[in-house]
Amino acid sequence: MEQYFRCVEECNRGRERSSEFLRFLVEGHTVGYIHPRFAALLEKFPQVFTVATTSTGYASVEIHERLETPEQRTTAVDDALRVLRRDGFVPGWRDEHYPVVLQFGSPAFFSLERAAVPFFGTKAYGVHMNGYVTNYDGSKQLWVAKRSKSKQTYPGYLDHLVAGGQPVGLSCSENIVKECEEEAGIPKQLAEKAIPVGAVSYETIYGEQCKRNVLFCYDLELPLDFEPSNKDGEVECFRLDSIPNVVQSLGNYKPNCALVVVDFLFRHGYIRPEQQGYLNLVQKLKSGECL
Amino acid sequence: MEQYFRCVEECNRGRERSSEFLRFLVEGHTVGYIHPRFAALLEKFPQVFTVATTSTGYASVEIHERLETPEQRTTAVDDALRVLRRDGFVPGWRDEHYPVVLQFGSPAFFSLERAAVPFFGTKAYGVHMNGYVTNYDGSKQLWVAKRSKSKQTYPGYLDHLVAGGQPVGLSCSENIVKECEEEAGIPKQLAEKAIPVGAVSYETIYGEQCKRNVLFCYDLELPLDFEPSNKDGEVECFRLDSIPNVVQSLGNYKPNCALVVVDFLFRHGYIRPEQQGYLNLVQKLKSGECL
Repeated sequence: MEQYFRCVEECNRGRERSSEFLRFLVEGHTVGYIHPRFAALLEKFPQVFTVATTSTGYASVEIHERLETPEQRTTAVDDALRVLRRDGFVPGWRDEHYPVVLQFGSPAFFSLERAAVPFFGTKAYGVHMNGYVTNYDGSKQLWVAKRSKSKQTYPGYLDHLVAGGQPVGLSCSENIVKECEEEAGIPKQLAEKAIPVGAVSYETIYGEQCKRNVLFCYDLELPLDFEPSNKDGEVECFRLDSIPNVVQSLGNYKPNCALVVVDFLFRHGYIRPEQQGYLNLVQKLKSGECL
Repeated sequence: MEQYFRCVEECNRGRERSSEFLRFLVEGHTVGYIHPRFAALLEKFPQVFTVATTSTGYASVEIHERLETPEQRTTAVDDALRVLRRDGFVPGWRDEHYPVVLQFGSPAFFSLERAAVPFFGTKAYGVHMNGYVTNYDGSKQLWVAKRSKSKQTYPGYLDHLVAGGQPVGLSCSENIVKECEEEAGIPKQLAEKAIPVGAVSYETIYGEQCKRNVLFCYDLELPLDFEPSNKDGEVECFRLDSIPNVVQSLGNYKPNCALVVVDFLFRHGYIRPEQQGYLNLVQKLKSGECL
């Protein structure tokens, strides 16, 4: 069980530092957490952010109250972030927006460049799909992607067959179908058979970043003769791995993918109640605020 | 989604009264919660229970410190409970013992007659199995048991194909195989294919009782020609129900079985992330302390 707990810990590292972070507020609601060093950068945009202070330092960061609509906030924040990007403070710019919400599906307060999300500690959602085959003897194998060496994050690590962030304006089901096509060449008709099976969540703190992520998990059973093919250059190669091999290589997975793999192992009976820590692990797969 | 939240609420009813209950301690650990009226009954056994008081009333109930071993505690508590049973305070005596533990699988402090467990608010574990078939068109149907009208609890309600409490001295896997045989006439070879798929938990308070339960969930896909047959007289009849029928009749299930059915609907993709409240429901299926 130790390797499974290591996956959970890897995704939830740095949480002992959460008290360092300031609350990030919109309309009086806490929607994220910001490190004081990043707050100091935001202080330079007093028309966009209200950085409250006390005698001991920063207290909170709030979207300026004159920014009343989601559109106004989105534009003003984006303009400020492009200045910070130019100065090298927001690496990995994506030109892709994530909604800032209290809970999944609730109205967005505004939307935020994906690369900036961990600096604001706002919630991020993703869809992660385990693609597997069932062999004639009943054994299962997982399709595993090896991430391209040119990826910004975790180059060369193992990955799901299909995974992607949940951007503005797309439902999870639509997103899975889109990512299936782009990342693994899975045609729509087959991709639509992907089954939503629950969610995992985690919270990572490193440096000035706070990641609060919820991943919607999907399973897709693929025909034995299906061969994935990558179209967006993000994958170096695919391979079909036996469950024992998957378990053995969990440490080589991108950490949040390892969580989704562990969830798969649970739901398919490869981890059993007799194993010490079973219930603890069930719980820990939802260590972040799963809402 | 409303019907699913109703299932969760039904299982977790009365929780607003949890502050009425006293902590129940063994070796300094809180292992349960006892209502003051039941504590008043236990006060009559000062050799077995130490009922601590403050100026405002009872403070806690502790197993007497002179009872040092699990065996001594089990015997002493059982003797006291048999007196209370004789006087009508412990209905539904089962002659079946549940271990008193802090977490599943950790060493038992002692063991307790099953009928008394909710009066002590100690944790209880069970195994619940959804038996289903996959039709030629890919649709699934669940085998549903109708509880005998002579059952003590929830007579005539719908039930899983197989479910049972987790007693002392049996692993979950062994228990599932045993209950499969007794409750549904499923032979060992087939029962051993039941897949452990996770757990749900809840906490119910009613009257003087506090139920803190964790249910290990199992799925068993059955051959299309299999017919269950009950051997212990606890089931009136079995029927094969389509998923829409199952959803419609959730209110007729024994409440904790409805939770396990909702978990099944989740894992098999019958509830989708697009439905408002999806993540909330994922979380609420583990409303009790899931350890």
